[in-house]
Amino acid sequence: MIDFITLCDYLGTFAFAISGIRLASAKKFDWFGAYVVGVVTAVGGGTIRDILLNATPFWMQQSSYLIISGLALLFVLIFRKYVIRLNNTFFIFDAIGLGLFAIVGIAKAIDFGFPFWVAIVMGTITGAFGGMMRDILINEEPLIFRKDIYALACVLGGFIYYFCDLAGLPLALTQFIAAVSVFLTRVIAVKYHISLPALKGEE
Amino acid sequence: MIDFITLCDYLGTFAFAISGIRLASAKKFDWFGAYVVGVVTAVGGGTIRDILLNATPFWMQQSSYLIISGLALLFVLIFRKYVIRLNNTFFIFDAIGLGLFAIVGIAKAIDFGFPFWVAIVMGTITGAFGGMMRDILINEEPLIFRKDIYALACVLGGFIYYFCDLAGLPLALTQFIAAVSVFLTRVIAVKYHISLPALKGEE
Amino acid sequence: MIDFITLCDYLGTFAFAISGIRLASAKKFDWFGAYVVGVVTAVGGGTIRDILLNATPFWMQQSSYLIISGLALLFVLIFRKYVIRLNNTFFIFDAIGLGLFAIVGIAKAIDFGFPFWVAIVMGTITGAFGGMMRDILINEEPLIFRKDIYALACVLGGFIYYFCDLAGLPLALTQFIAAVSVFLTRVIAVKYHISLPALKGEE
Repeated sequence: MIDFITLCDYLGTFAFAISGIRLASAKKFDWFGAYVVGVVTAVGGGTIRDILLNATPFWMQQSSYLIISGLALLFVLIFRKYVIRLNNTFFIFDAIGLGLFAIVGIAKAIDFGFPFWVAIVMGTITGAFGGMMRDILINEEPLIFRKDIYALACVLGGFIYYFCDLAGLPLALTQFIAAVSVFLTRVIAVKYHISLPALKGEE
Repeated sequence: MIDFITLCDYLGTFAFAISGIRLASAKKFDWFGAYVVGVVTAVGGGTIRDILLNATPFWMQQSSYLIISGLALLFVLIFRKYVIRLNNTFFIFDAIGLGLFAIVGIAKAIDFGFPFWVAIVMGTITGAFGGMMRDILINEEPLIFRKDIYALACVLGGFIYYFCDLAGLPLALTQFIAAVSVFLTRVIAVKYHISLPALKGEE
Repeated sequence: MIDFITLCDYLGTFAFAISGIRLASAKKFDWFGAYVVGVVTAVGGGTIRDILLNATPFWMQQSSYLIISGLALLFVLIFRKYVIRLNNTFFIFDAIGLGLFAIVGIAKAIDFGFPFWVAIVMGTITGAFGGMMRDILINEEPLIFRKDIYALACVLGGFIYYFCDLAGLPLALTQFIAAVSVFLTRVIAVKYHISLPALKGEE
């Protein structure tokens, strides 16, 4: 039986891959191209984190992530017409993934002996850079830099992780609180259309 | 004297660099910019592979690859008007490169102790991600995701490599068969306009 | 007290970050997105260099670079209307940064035992690839490949470093001469509108 964390990890991977595949399909990518975009969206952030930490990329150590991305492709192929009705479900999965990925990134950086500020950056990269790489691949300006609170939710979760840790909370509780904060920040930001102001250009 | 494999490697590098330089020239990049795009096209896939495997990038260990890319720039500069007539020749060189690069990627991943499924991914990255990086640099949607069979030929070659290996064939024969499969898949796909279906978008 | 080299490093980082933030603001990125683009512009080149050299990325070892990028964001937010008048100042800082970054890249590659031609490539990557990544993020064709002498100034500085070193000059003098060459090449190229010819496309 898989545990709760693994389940969240897989749901998040699935939702991230779905978002890549759907955007690739809007650009008329072929099946394999869409799969690649799905994989990059799902594992891209964690891969950059692992390269920066000089660790073996996590998806090269177990095949689940590529398989789940393949299932996401199948899902979009088969349920094409109904996918759009599942938008809310995918959004929730995506937010779960964001929370979990951010916390995994933070924990891994600390394991590797980096200070907390590096860990917060790594959490943010893990959560948000897959979506950024997706947008680069499909040749769009990165959505995460212009829409709602996304990457910033990871930063916030990172600070909460830090303060819970400072306060002496047990690790599992710290990580749970931080992940939930990321999740809630994201959900509330979207529900109430909260977003950062755009940086106004010069005249 | 250089051996047959080295020759294929150099021809492939040349053809990959030419494709980058030509597309950069269509975007009015300057000479140096075109050279950079050529180099990235030629060595980009292998570089990502080496970073993921935590190996020193291959082109940092001998200067041939940067020199061959320089020759490709010279070639385009001097024979500008005739380059287009050589399309078929470049296509064959490119397909040779694709086959060889894919097999080099597979063999290197196995050397580094990774399982076969990682090796197949590494072969595909080696063969196809240079072209993907080229298209990112010139700000186009990656062609390899929308045209003919390209990256998929590397995947196919990877499976053939795997089955030949399972069947106990000698390594050299296995690699030869796999490389030729990639080459032929690519050539046949282009000759008969075989491509994967595009992923249809949602309404 | 910080020394002269550190001062140049910080000024360069500030100017690189400013250029990223300003271009992101022209694309209506939000504050955090603009900050990310600023950071990537400032540390992107050195990060790619460190990944290729298999070193821990420099900005993960001290927080100054992320802080300076944050100051750059504040600066643009507060002095939005006056930023454009400082164009010349930023240009000078940017050219100082280019010179220093190129030399830091060269020296680090040599420290890691690579031959000079790799070091020159690393110097160029350190100086120019941050700007390239910036343009990828904001979804524009890389400016550095189409405008004035930019990356090429780093290459030139690399050769000068090499010849000064061959001539037996002391390291500090070699590095000073090379950095000043990059700086002057860049300034002169912009002042006199010197640029490489564009690679003409095929008909």
